[in-house]
Amino acid sequence: MTYQAPIKDMLLALNHGAGLKAAVEAGHYGDFDADLTAAVLEEAGKFASDVLAPLNRVGDQNGIKLQDGKVTTAPGWPDAYKRWTEGGWNAVSGPESFGGQGLPLAINAACTEIWSASNVAFGLCPLLTLSAIEALDAHGSDELKKIYLGKLVSGEWTGTMQLTEPQAGSDVGALRTRAERAPDGTYRLKGAKIFITYGDHDMTDNIVHFVLARLPDAPAGTKGISLFLVPKFLVNADGSLGARNDIYPSGVEHKLGMHASPTCTMTMGDHGGAIGYLIGEENQGMRCMFTMMNQARLGVGLEGVGIADRAYQQALGYAQERRQGRAVGKSADSGSDPIIVHPDIKRTLMQMRSLTAAARTICYATAVALDVAARATDAKVRSEAAARGALLTPIAKAFSTDVGNEVAYLGVQVHGGMGFIEETGAAQHYRDARITPIYEGTNGIQAIDLVTRKLAANGGAAVWALLDELGETIKQVEGSNDPAFGGTGQKLHDALASLTRTSRWLLERVTSAPNDALAGATPYLRLFGATVGGCYLASEALAARSGSFGEPQRYVALARFFAENIAVQAPSLEKSVTDGAEMVNGADAVLLG
Amino acid sequence: MTYQAPIKDMLLALNHGAGLKAAVEAGHYGDFDADLTAAVLEEAGKFASDVLAPLNRVGDQNGIKLQDGKVTTAPGWPDAYKRWTEGGWNAVSGPESFGGQGLPLAINAACTEIWSASNVAFGLCPLLTLSAIEALDAHGSDELKKIYLGKLVSGEWTGTMQLTEPQAGSDVGALRTRAERAPDGTYRLKGAKIFITYGDHDMTDNIVHFVLARLPDAPAGTKGISLFLVPKFLVNADGSLGARNDIYPSGVEHKLGMHASPTCTMTMGDHGGAIGYLIGEENQGMRCMFTMMNQARLGVGLEGVGIADRAYQQALGYAQERRQGRAVGKSADSGSDPIIVHPDIKRTLMQMRSLTAAARTICYATAVALDVAARATDAKVRSEAAARGALLTPIAKAFSTDVGNEVAYLGVQVHGGMGFIEETGAAQHYRDARITPIYEGTNGIQAIDLVTRKLAANGGAAVWALLDELGETIKQVEGSNDPAFGGTGQKLHDALASLTRTSRWLLERVTSAPNDALAGATPYLRLFGATVGGCYLASEALAARSGSFGEPQRYVALARFFAENIAVQAPSLEKSVTDGAEMVNGADAVLLG
Repeated sequence: MTYQAPIKDMLLALNHGAGLKAAVEAGHYGDFDADLTAAVLEEAGKFASDVLAPLNRVGDQNGIKLQDGKVTTAPGWPDAYKRWTEGGWNAVSGPESFGGQGLPLAINAACTEIWSASNVAFGLCPLLTLSAIEALDAHGSDELKKIYLGKLVSGEWTGTMQLTEPQAGSDVGALRTRAERAPDGTYRLKGAKIFITYGDHDMTDNIVHFVLARLPDAPAGTKGISLFLVPKFLVNADGSLGARNDIYPSGVEHKLGMHASPTCTMTMGDHGGAIGYLIGEENQGMRCMFTMMNQARLGVGLEGVGIADRAYQQALGYAQERRQGRAVGKSADSGSDPIIVHPDIKRTLMQMRSLTAAARTICYATAVALDVAARATDAKVRSEAAARGALLTPIAKAFSTDVGNEVAYLGVQVHGGMGFIEETGAAQHYRDARITPIYEGTNGIQAIDLVTRKLAANGGAAVWALLDELGETIKQVEGSNDPAFGGTGQKLHDALASLTRTSRWLLERVTSAPNDALAGATPYLRLFGATVGGCYLASEALAARSGSFGEPQRYVALARFFAENIAVQAPSLEKSVTDGAEMVNGADAVLLG
Repeated sequence: MTYQAPIKDMLLALNHGAGLKAAVEAGHYGDFDADLTAAVLEEAGKFASDVLAPLNRVGDQNGIKLQDGKVTTAPGWPDAYKRWTEGGWNAVSGPESFGGQGLPLAINAACTEIWSASNVAFGLCPLLTLSAIEALDAHGSDELKKIYLGKLVSGEWTGTMQLTEPQAGSDVGALRTRAERAPDGTYRLKGAKIFITYGDHDMTDNIVHFVLARLPDAPAGTKGISLFLVPKFLVNADGSLGARNDIYPSGVEHKLGMHASPTCTMTMGDHGGAIGYLIGEENQGMRCMFTMMNQARLGVGLEGVGIADRAYQQALGYAQERRQGRAVGKSADSGSDPIIVHPDIKRTLMQMRSLTAAARTICYATAVALDVAARATDAKVRSEAAARGALLTPIAKAFSTDVGNEVAYLGVQVHGGMGFIEETGAAQHYRDARITPIYEGTNGIQAIDLVTRKLAANGGAAVWALLDELGETIKQVEGSNDPAFGGTGQKLHDALASLTRTSRWLLERVTSAPNDALAGATPYLRLFGATVGGCYLASEALAARSGSFGEPQRYVALARFFAENIAVQAPSLEKSVTDGAEMVNGADAVLLG
């Protein structure tokens, strides 16, 4: 049940697969000292193993309680949160002008994986605070920043994102919470929100809610949504806490997993209206929300990676301890072997590890792109990196959370009957993972975003640029003439060809036959993830081979396994997209007949 | 949350996909009146909807209790069980000489699907009784049969299967429970068993345990195992209940799902030893156990089908009610549409339905083969059918339970955030399904059984015979020249070619390079399921087209979707098997490096 951050794999993924080293060397990270990376991750890993991991099961078993309008978290959680902020972990990537360490998103991404692996229900709280920081920093007034931003960066206060209402889930534009202008320039909010993560808790004195609401004269749909900052306690001029604001948790959900993370129904307006402060401009809330969402989507992808790695570590440990049967060729009267000797168990563990590694690098590459988009001095470099980050975000979110669920599933399977028993913890990973393909935009919505926005932008420019790079990696694999790669080059070559053809096919239809394009969105995203992930693992293997990192055999084998078992699915996925639209769109004959 | 047995789909699958009609017409079912089928299923569906389905959530929420050595089931369960036996449902396929109705296994298979769909935790109890009946009928003495068989057939008493011990899970041969010969010809059992389903409960007066144990002078491993009948209460000569036997539930597991089904640790021998009666001969317990296991494996496959269908029905209902967003082309100010208008949701539902339908027919076809093996008059027909049943059993178990989990996963996804909330019930299906790929032999073990025993038997004779039949179906699809089939024929043709090549590849290695064969077992089983399932759905579509059944459009579309999205994975799976062995068997460099 312990967790050890896989620092070596993470550094290889960051520096070589995701391109952090090259970007630093190209000067896109300014004076960032890349040698810091390992030290930060080592420390983060230590904090996670020592403080967060031991509370993971405690949180699952105790859950949270709502009583008298207050949420109480599990035993040990407020103290762990205190140590979290004291250690400066909340401030890793926060803006330096407000007390943050200003470290790259890429470093924070690796940290997010570590928090999620050790205790995903805990890590979710700062993840949302981070989104809030991003939105406030980008769109808030100087006055609001002065009062709230420093406290959010340090973690003294936490943030929430309040979008969802019963009739407005994926369709945010359908929300009804009302905000009325008050004479003093503030607003009064009335309405109810559901599924609000850490909507209330006992870990901090104050909570800063970021609430989407609609002005009385707002246009219908997404064009009439505004974003408001609504503190749990109002803040006096001297920074001390004032009156309790009219926003209360009125219910908590009974969930499949993430038991330690309170999921609240929030009610505003039972006592005259919650006081809110506008962020950005009126009716521009969707723009601000997307700032929050993009950060959060990458964060959720990293939750998938983290849970996957935790499940893998646990399954690997179990497979080395649990003895059943004997290796092929051993006599029946020799003692039984650990189950890791069985080829089917080896396959399962390799699948878990290679999927996790691929998802990890996709997430890190997304973070590097977002970093370069924010930090590079050259405008063209920035804009291309922004397009890359936008393209990779839905893949990072959806592919990685699918992987988190697949790997947690396999982790239960390796445990056999013990996997179904809650005591082992394998089942908790499986339950906790299940929300990740749903929240921050379901994976179906990520796939639709990939096809209709990210692929379609600029005639697919961001896609073609990425595929060109992948082609270079494949050439290097083939050029290495290393027999240890086996058929890796050929398999990735085939995958890239499938991805290229499928991208073209979709691009031709996204406007002219949108339902045909939409019908293939989900297999297209998987095809994209499998191809990009396979090429990233290959580039890590090449780096390991080149002597700069070591352990070439290990990383070549991992890349090859992925190519032979995951990337190899590309041609089938291509066919599902390009041949499947008619039956998908004709489904009513089956479903409703 | 209601469940409606899909009688029409089930009849098509039974009669046409699984070949019941042809087998009846060929005389293999003796005087069985095939018209009975629909009537039995209608009644079973009614009982399931009225009595069992409403208790599914009650059972999940209340679970079971162990107190003072006695297990209490959830409210309403004992009464439901009483109605179950009164309705004669326990006796559907039991031997007529002991009060059973002697209906074909195929009919019982359809019923098992219905029980599992409506309430899988309930259905598990009679499923195990059925295995016990099978073992006792095949291997028990006349005296034991006289006392116990009738009560088990009627369901007045239930049965358990007691194999597992902490050190002996998949490796049954490692069990240590001891049985000592008593002077009166009975035995005294001492030891502990774990994971015993319905090891104790309050639904019947007595429970008949079937316990594997080892005699003091028994050889090591599986050759030294004997099977014993150990009643909870001894039975007097007049059939009345006598003394409490020394077998007690000493603990119950806290599980991920199946909360209503008690999973007990059973302790024997705290009061001198449990009295047991030998079934079959000493040291022949494995043979008797396989009799129980085969029946149970098909039953577990049907649990996968049942849970899948329940999850599908619930997701379909939700998708028709839940409104979010609008269909492509509708103006933003028109009201929102049910989410079933979105192509990605249509794809998800089609995937759920087509996977469920394919798994259903594979299970039914297994049952038909086992029926013919038991009932046909011609010895060659019987022996070929037995080989077919043996071949299909691991596929029925593993493919169908994988499908059960995939479909339950997708069912949660269709519900969005509501899927993660326990109140909707989608999460319960997901949790309950998770045990099915584990118990009665993990799916990895099924895959190994498929490769090393079922494929390898008689040079692959059973496989070649089945593949020939599938080839005939494909020819008919291609010969139909029906454009509605689209690329179905070609995709199935490619899948069959992959399956044929892969079977040959494995057959060449199963003895000479067993680790290479074992490394590909799991993808091979999936390849097998995807190909067979695709062809079965195509044969159902052909039957529907031929006018004997109706609704051709619906079933052709379903078969085509499966071919285009599931069977199409065959060439990728082939490559995983034939190219992947080196990396699987070289995995230690990655996993342990």
